[in-house]
Amino acid sequence: MKVLLLGAGRSKRMKPITDKNFLNFLGKPLIEWQLELIKNAGLDEVVIVGGKHNLEKLVLCGKNLGIDVTVIEQKDLDAGMCGAVLAAKDKIGSEPVLIFSSNDVVEKSAFESVLTAFEAGEAEGYLLGKVVHTYFPGGYLEISEDGCIKNIVEKPEKGKEPSNLVNLVVHIHKDFAKLVSYLEKAKSDSDDLYEVALGNMINDGIKMKAVKYEGFWQPIKFPWHVNKVFKFLFENAEKTTSKSAQISKNAIIKGDVIIGENVKILEGATVNGPVYIGDGSVIATNALVRESNIGKNCVIGFSTEVARSFLGDDVWTHSNYIGDSVIGNNVSFGAGTVTGNLRLDEGEISVTGDNKKTPTGECKLGLITGDNVRVGINNSFMPGVKIGSDTFIGAGLVIAENIPAKSFVKGEVTLKITENKVDISKINRDEMKKKIK
Amino acid sequence: MKVLLLGAGRSKRMKPITDKNFLNFLGKPLIEWQLELIKNAGLDEVVIVGGKHNLEKLVLCGKNLGIDVTVIEQKDLDAGMCGAVLAAKDKIGSEPVLIFSSNDVVEKSAFESVLTAFEAGEAEGYLLGKVVHTYFPGGYLEISEDGCIKNIVEKPEKGKEPSNLVNLVVHIHKDFAKLVSYLEKAKSDSDDLYEVALGNMINDGIKMKAVKYEGFWQPIKFPWHVNKVFKFLFENAEKTTSKSAQISKNAIIKGDVIIGENVKILEGATVNGPVYIGDGSVIATNALVRESNIGKNCVIGFSTEVARSFLGDDVWTHSNYIGDSVIGNNVSFGAGTVTGNLRLDEGEISVTGDNKKTPTGECKLGLITGDNVRVGINNSFMPGVKIGSDTFIGAGLVIAENIPAKSFVKGEVTLKITENKVDISKINRDEMKKKIK
Amino acid sequence: MKVLLLGAGRSKRMKPITDKNFLNFLGKPLIEWQLELIKNAGLDEVVIVGGKHNLEKLVLCGKNLGIDVTVIEQKDLDAGMCGAVLAAKDKIGSEPVLIFSSNDVVEKSAFESVLTAFEAGEAEGYLLGKVVHTYFPGGYLEISEDGCIKNIVEKPEKGKEPSNLVNLVVHIHKDFAKLVSYLEKAKSDSDDLYEVALGNMINDGIKMKAVKYEGFWQPIKFPWHVNKVFKFLFENAEKTTSKSAQISKNAIIKGDVIIGENVKILEGATVNGPVYIGDGSVIATNALVRESNIGKNCVIGFSTEVARSFLGDDVWTHSNYIGDSVIGNNVSFGAGTVTGNLRLDEGEISVTGDNKKTPTGECKLGLITGDNVRVGINNSFMPGVKIGSDTFIGAGLVIAENIPAKSFVKGEVTLKITENKVDISKINRDEMKKKIK
Repeated sequence: MKVLLLGAGRSKRMKPITDKNFLNFLGKPLIEWQLELIKNAGLDEVVIVGGKHNLEKLVLCGKNLGIDVTVIEQKDLDAGMCGAVLAAKDKIGSEPVLIFSSNDVVEKSAFESVLTAFEAGEAEGYLLGKVVHTYFPGGYLEISEDGCIKNIVEKPEKGKEPSNLVNLVVHIHKDFAKLVSYLEKAKSDSDDLYEVALGNMINDGIKMKAVKYEGFWQPIKFPWHVNKVFKFLFENAEKTTSKSAQISKNAIIKGDVIIGENVKILEGATVNGPVYIGDGSVIATNALVRESNIGKNCVIGFSTEVARSFLGDDVWTHSNYIGDSVIGNNVSFGAGTVTGNLRLDEGEISVTGDNKKTPTGECKLGLITGDNVRVGINNSFMPGVKIGSDTFIGAGLVIAENIPAKSFVKGEVTLKITENKVDISKINRDEMKKKIK
Repeated sequence: MKVLLLGAGRSKRMKPITDKNFLNFLGKPLIEWQLELIKNAGLDEVVIVGGKHNLEKLVLCGKNLGIDVTVIEQKDLDAGMCGAVLAAKDKIGSEPVLIFSSNDVVEKSAFESVLTAFEAGEAEGYLLGKVVHTYFPGGYLEISEDGCIKNIVEKPEKGKEPSNLVNLVVHIHKDFAKLVSYLEKAKSDSDDLYEVALGNMINDGIKMKAVKYEGFWQPIKFPWHVNKVFKFLFENAEKTTSKSAQISKNAIIKGDVIIGENVKILEGATVNGPVYIGDGSVIATNALVRESNIGKNCVIGFSTEVARSFLGDDVWTHSNYIGDSVIGNNVSFGAGTVTGNLRLDEGEISVTGDNKKTPTGECKLGLITGDNVRVGINNSFMPGVKIGSDTFIGAGLVIAENIPAKSFVKGEVTLKITENKVDISKINRDEMKKKIK
Repeated sequence: MKVLLLGAGRSKRMKPITDKNFLNFLGKPLIEWQLELIKNAGLDEVVIVGGKHNLEKLVLCGKNLGIDVTVIEQKDLDAGMCGAVLAAKDKIGSEPVLIFSSNDVVEKSAFESVLTAFEAGEAEGYLLGKVVHTYFPGGYLEISEDGCIKNIVEKPEKGKEPSNLVNLVVHIHKDFAKLVSYLEKAKSDSDDLYEVALGNMINDGIKMKAVKYEGFWQPIKFPWHVNKVFKFLFENAEKTTSKSAQISKNAIIKGDVIIGENVKILEGATVNGPVYIGDGSVIATNALVRESNIGKNCVIGFSTEVARSFLGDDVWTHSNYIGDSVIGNNVSFGAGTVTGNLRLDEGEISVTGDNKKTPTGECKLGLITGDNVRVGINNSFMPGVKIGSDTFIGAGLVIAENIPAKSFVKGEVTLKITENKVDISKINRDEMKKKIK
């Protein structure tokens, strides 16, 4: 069975993170984690649909997994999932196909369930239904008594969900060509042609089965999903500490950690797992790293705390607090700079993007930056602020708004300089010390 | 003998601290410390004079001490000490009474001295005279050769003190009713009717004796008295570490400490006594606490220093310096926020309140806050600043003035954003590292 | 042989450092290091040329070395090296003299080479030629085949150097009186009369030999030279730790260190050599000092990092980052204040002085201060900024320009205070904690 892996998304909602497929979790891009998952489910023929923006990088993927990867381009990226599937028309014929979105992080059992159902059953299609216990604003599967799907209800009102099964794109279609023909005929004003086509198939009596799934699922659409994905992938990964790592006997390692080649952990530093530290990174004197993914060649400088954050490669910090943040590659923070990650009223944090505010559901969220950012000393970032790539931030600033890419941000400095009439040289420091002590 | 405990003060000069009687020293309110002291001196019948603002809380006091506590209300709080004593008119008759102010923190020997003198002597009144070695702006006892008080001189000029004995309100009156009758007849334009009445008694030939006291005395009138009281109470308390406390083997405990139930002290933290840490508090990685009272359920976060400070319950800090400060309950400090506690000229710090400046006699004094305060990141507080309760402070601000209760304080942010013309992505980090190293 | 030690320079380019001769390296002023070097080369008769600004201090030098030091004054300090040498006219006759500038830090072998050449040879003068491998903007020695100097070429264009030997002022003149007579006749519009005189001597057939020198040479002209000199002097000094030093068993000492009398190094502190710590200094809890010279009676406070910096005596820091900086005597830094030491574009740092920008050749350079400076909390200094002596800096400021001596620098504080309508006292901290954890 072929797998059609949908990877053409432009990560618009992830901005200023450029392409989530190539975010390195534990040193490996998300897309590789997905390919590995596919391979571990026993599948080894994958067609990846990419876009102009990531085709070049996609063709390099999966090389070391021993699976057959074909990369095709979705020309019209506005054509959504329907367009993505149709892009594969020439590569897949009247054969079964498993469609999977690179956006969705799931357990291996998601694949196993749907594959088992397909092997056992006689339906034309098998859709994974994620069992939810609280309301989720997605598509719900309406099910008949025999487990067949009667309808897909997009974002029903809360309390009016037709089931507790949310449509998760791990779909098997027995005859890809038939799906294609329905997709080509589907009509809709909005971005749901794929779901419309499925609906039409069901209406035409084509049998679609829901496959229940109770395992982990984290779509990675917004930056604040990144650390949740990290934690899941970390939990399931082998915990290794490279032999070339130099860990001071005065450093503290707690909980589960993965420590790469040539990592240095200096005296007084604490690493409080789950923590991944990429090759060549340094956790310096008296620093604290907890529940975080640290990329390659990073320097977590003296007395810095990194908590619940995702750092790309070549990130340099120095006496900072980086909390609940997602930081790109090649980013520096000057000493004393701090990411605010909690509102004063301790309420839900919203982020701004595309001229609208998006509530995040989180009461802790820090900074989100692109790549190639340089931040000066003693800056203060308000929760949920985004800094575009290739940007410089001056010193002593309060950044309470998103900063576009390629910006140079400075503040107004107005110093009032008058004559100092106190002769401090006359002050007796020893008396002072006595008074103080 | 009954004790008349004066506790109706409104703590005006303690603002934004609300009621000093209920400041928790080592987890116990000041008023309870005073009741315990009374009990330990062998007295077990106490009439507490309160005000409308604290009656409800006062009636709950002393329960577990096995002493008989009656709480009465002083209606007119402007009537001062005279009004407070008269409020007890119906509760105490023609019997001996020991009058004591909850404001004054003294040793048990203060009570013992005055009780011993009373038992041995034949005078009508016994006033504690604190022996002072430097000038103190209080009432001085003028003494005749036989140790009887000739006069009470209020705030004499420096150098013109009639003795080295300052009138400290640990007073025994043999016949409370007689005191009451004099109080009812006393006349004065200012707030000294009690002292006027004593003067009248002396003039009428009623014998009043001075009882010398060389022990500890600290009136608690201003916030900067709080830490001095803490140190005294701590010194005399039993030094215990709760069994439920979890102290990392990589934490350092120096000097005398009292550590409550379920306290956690994490790796790299240093606690340098005298330090009290209330139940449920966390001293996090690489934090330093010294000479301080930490209330219940506090978090002294990563790399924070708390020095010579008094923190109420539920105070959260994170990479801060809190020095010589008095912090209320339920207060948070964002990372990088610092309390200035020393003037640039290293001179005496004054605080502002009620439209006047009060010199504190201290060259080190930090921040004073009420309850329910949230402070953002990277703020700078000038020495001796007061923050009212229920207040939010933004980020990156310099707070050089008192902030009223229920305020939301923000700064003006003017960012100048221009195009960044440097292509930092081209910079070779490895070369950079070589240059730097 | 007499040594003529030129020490009259006014350290203009070192501003706000006052007199480099009296900068204490490893607790000893530079001029004493130079006298010791002279003594170790076997010379014990020194004439120091000083100026009005340092005569008094110079006469106290060399006392404990057992050498004969005469101090003379150069009246006209604008007369440069020529004027300095002529000032010694009455103290030195027709005898050999070794001229050495207190500005130049060299190895003992520099003296040995030139003395050996003098003893063996028949030339009238011997000039030390420092072998350089990259272009240096100094005077180059043009050499004939027999090793004699044909010419001194001042600052040749790069690539047009007449040799790889730079003229280093360790010069022997066989007959001082002859040199004087040429100096008195030399004429020039610029500050090169000494070199002009040497040229005239050569032109008149007086034989001058170049003595090759491959050892260490660091002129100390600009503040950023100070740490290079420290490292050299440290490397060659005996590494001792005073018995009276109290080093916590929880402190870390790495690399080579020199630790003075009564130094205290507290728990969690790291000292990462080369580091010199002067008598009476305290390295406090969780502080980090690396590659630095710390003067006497300094306090490197909690969680401070001092890296590659030179601190005078009585410098107090507290939760700071002091990097690549040169700090005078009696200076304090409030908590949270940070020296920026790297440009956002990571390029070469220039400093401003005398109305011009001087490129430093360094990509890391921090703060330069004079004496008696008090810096408040949470300030940010831009790389290469200079703070004059006797200056106060407020709080929360970004200092991006040089500050003259005797200044009081404040910022504009504009707080917007509105009513806080959130009732934070109602927020359940326990639920909050659960959400966060």
